[in-house]
Amino acid sequence: MKQFLSVDDVADPMGVAREAIQLKSNPFQYQDMGKNKTLGLVFFNPSLRTRMSTARAAYNLGMHVMVLNVSQDSWQLETEDGVIMDGGKAEHIREAAAVMGSYCEILGVRSFPTLTDREKDYSEYLLNAFARHAGVPIINMESATVHPLQSLADLMTIEEHAQNKRPKVVLTWAPHVKALPQAVPNSFAQWMNRAPVDFVITHPKGMELAPEFSGQAGIEYDQSKALEGADFIYVKNWSSYHDYGHLYQAREWMMSLDKLKNTHNARVMHCLPVRRNVVIDDAVLDSNHSIVQQQAANRVYAAQIVIKKLLEAL
Amino acid sequence: MKQFLSVDDVADPMGVAREAIQLKSNPFQYQDMGKNKTLGLVFFNPSLRTRMSTARAAYNLGMHVMVLNVSQDSWQLETEDGVIMDGGKAEHIREAAAVMGSYCEILGVRSFPTLTDREKDYSEYLLNAFARHAGVPIINMESATVHPLQSLADLMTIEEHAQNKRPKVVLTWAPHVKALPQAVPNSFAQWMNRAPVDFVITHPKGMELAPEFSGQAGIEYDQSKALEGADFIYVKNWSSYHDYGHLYQAREWMMSLDKLKNTHNARVMHCLPVRRNVVIDDAVLDSNHSIVQQQAANRVYAAQIVIKKLLEAL
Amino acid sequence: MKQFLSVDDVADPMGVAREAIQLKSNPFQYQDMGKNKTLGLVFFNPSLRTRMSTARAAYNLGMHVMVLNVSQDSWQLETEDGVIMDGGKAEHIREAAAVMGSYCEILGVRSFPTLTDREKDYSEYLLNAFARHAGVPIINMESATVHPLQSLADLMTIEEHAQNKRPKVVLTWAPHVKALPQAVPNSFAQWMNRAPVDFVITHPKGMELAPEFSGQAGIEYDQSKALEGADFIYVKNWSSYHDYGHLYQAREWMMSLDKLKNTHNARVMHCLPVRRNVVIDDAVLDSNHSIVQQQAANRVYAAQIVIKKLLEAL
Repeated sequence: MKQFLSVDDVADPMGVAREAIQLKSNPFQYQDMGKNKTLGLVFFNPSLRTRMSTARAAYNLGMHVMVLNVSQDSWQLETEDGVIMDGGKAEHIREAAAVMGSYCEILGVRSFPTLTDREKDYSEYLLNAFARHAGVPIINMESATVHPLQSLADLMTIEEHAQNKRPKVVLTWAPHVKALPQAVPNSFAQWMNRAPVDFVITHPKGMELAPEFSGQAGIEYDQSKALEGADFIYVKNWSSYHDYGHLYQAREWMMSLDKLKNTHNARVMHCLPVRRNVVIDDAVLDSNHSIVQQQAANRVYAAQIVIKKLLEAL
Repeated sequence: MKQFLSVDDVADPMGVAREAIQLKSNPFQYQDMGKNKTLGLVFFNPSLRTRMSTARAAYNLGMHVMVLNVSQDSWQLETEDGVIMDGGKAEHIREAAAVMGSYCEILGVRSFPTLTDREKDYSEYLLNAFARHAGVPIINMESATVHPLQSLADLMTIEEHAQNKRPKVVLTWAPHVKALPQAVPNSFAQWMNRAPVDFVITHPKGMELAPEFSGQAGIEYDQSKALEGADFIYVKNWSSYHDYGHLYQAREWMMSLDKLKNTHNARVMHCLPVRRNVVIDDAVLDSNHSIVQQQAANRVYAAQIVIKKLLEAL
Repeated sequence: MKQFLSVDDVADPMGVAREAIQLKSNPFQYQDMGKNKTLGLVFFNPSLRTRMSTARAAYNLGMHVMVLNVSQDSWQLETEDGVIMDGGKAEHIREAAAVMGSYCEILGVRSFPTLTDREKDYSEYLLNAFARHAGVPIINMESATVHPLQSLADLMTIEEHAQNKRPKVVLTWAPHVKALPQAVPNSFAQWMNRAPVDFVITHPKGMELAPEFSGQAGIEYDQSKALEGADFIYVKNWSSYHDYGHLYQAREWMMSLDKLKNTHNARVMHCLPVRRNVVIDDAVLDSNHSIVQQQAANRVYAAQIVIKKLLEAL
């Protein structure tokens, strides 16, 4: 693996998920693989799980870790080419990415979308600028449009908890109080479309994801119909792709225990952070249906298998 | 030791202080004990000594260290149960603590009091929520009501500098320019009450600490009387417990050289940071009376013996 | 080497630059030298290259690294002696430096000038306070008046790219949009004045550096004359030393391809971050003339040779 920007960099998603599960059973089996090597984690936005799980993954492989919180520790970066840099941005991404790449063997990058300029966001200009200029492998730690480390951990978790060979997985939109990116659902849909599952997406009309991400997944506007017989329910809010960045309101889409009645004793998933009693109610999160904690714990091994594969290809 | 929330988790405070002194003489004797293990340091408030000394302690034991500055690196956490999370807080402490606990073998937590809601502060809701939900041992890195890593370092320092078997230790209130927590004096009182010392507290009338912390200590409202024959003087401001959070003003309580005259050549202690010429004057801090630097240096070994005991009990 | 505050701590600048080049060819040859030792990096100002390259240098030597962002992680420090600390500053540099020095074997310090109080800035009060009170070796990570880690990396880069025995090196002032410190040009001038090069400084009249830094260097007010036959051109803005902190404007001083015509196929240098098309135009930065990236990469080995020498002298 030469980089990890999205599922497109992964030849066999389920194969990688299974390798991650194997790694989890013995996390220190490659503890010298990263000796004398450094992973740089570059955050343009806040992070808790990704920050800690990716660092832990690197430690498990014997690497050093450096964190750069761009806005706090450093200065704003210019991403447009050809501009006269006489504004607030002190350094160009061309220099910054190349410099960071000369200090670290691998770089992780987190950068959220603007949610105001769809074309710019969906061009993945910042992630791609890093990939182009850093000179080292890039790990996507959640970009404008996808969050593949999360999706890989999600696939691992489904594989660990699946009760049958071809589980039914439903991605359901849920309410929220602020406009959120489409990165997690986009990415989850991409990975599910390449996994041995029956995948359905349910959301209010108009909340369709970009077609290049939803792909061949079935779309069902009736949430209760979609949830029938589900083995896994991935609950997640996203703001509108079509009316870009619009916060759609529909409280009745919150996940609650009664919605699980006609499921196949479904496991409920969420990438966290989750707003309790807005997105999913307490009764679900505190029940055995919830595997959100297992997903979060698997983030270490998802990151670790990715870093391992990048190290092997250095 | 299963956790380190307060002195109540310590069977023999002086015994642990002596083990810390022994560790100081050879800090790397257990340098492989923490191999492949990670200490997570979670800060809800600023820190210099605790941040650096606790990290150093973990390094001395061969651990990795991760720091999370909650407000900068991540988002605000909800601590109340059962609420509809539609405000500014994006994640519940239940999820956050459990997630951090799945990435780290031990977590340190710093969270200061509100100084406005005494009942809430003294319930230690945040520290206790971590202890309840993290699933791993918690180290108190200064909570709403106590700062046991500081107190252990203080006890070490007293033991190292004691000239007689049962020294007289005086905790004296001192002036300040802003309202400060009671955590350091509360904690110091608790530890001294369980140490082989004669312990006296002196402060202006009305500045009494909560009785569960001052315990059986003698209270003396006349500072000069209290200081007579003192071997150790612990100088510290705190805001009012009874008129909760009130900043009491009394400049004449500042520690100065002339106040040391009737002492037993007393050593002067403070947890730092100290405002010079407000809390303690320059002449004292720059004299041989001051052992504030030795206290601060001992923070490494106090943290190290705690981490060692927690690692042994994993 | 007992400290690294400026070139004055270096007996043989070019000798050290050559040792750094040797280290670069085998960065892990001393990977156990720093075992069980910790480098503390103390930032009063933002940093990207210095933060990451100095950490990487320490890792290459087997050290641990701790970062303290003073304003974010901790509180403001008082640097004046004898004051009554009843304002916004919670801790005195005397205590803070000594405490940090008790947790780390070596400390790096970054602190920019005020650009309003020249006497204070040029006294290097903060750096010198650290040197006086920390009790451990101090590495200057850019202070009010010099940036010797940068200058050492610059000298390395010149040595690596020199086509003849005594290259002509020109330091040229360049435009900018905000007032910048004199630290980088001051420091570069100091190092060049002690290196086997022909060194010329060119800038608009009135933008003279402090004489103790420019020293015996030739000053030429005509940029095109200065650049004739140059082998290396160091481009850098600085604000006025004489009209202290004043931002001088002169767009025609920007470095562009046509200015390289009468040079000896000059290599163009800059310490970064560089504002494209303000300080240097895209055509130069994206051409083979530019060695800014090589300079930045050399920061690791400049820091590493300094840390190595400090470790050897502990």
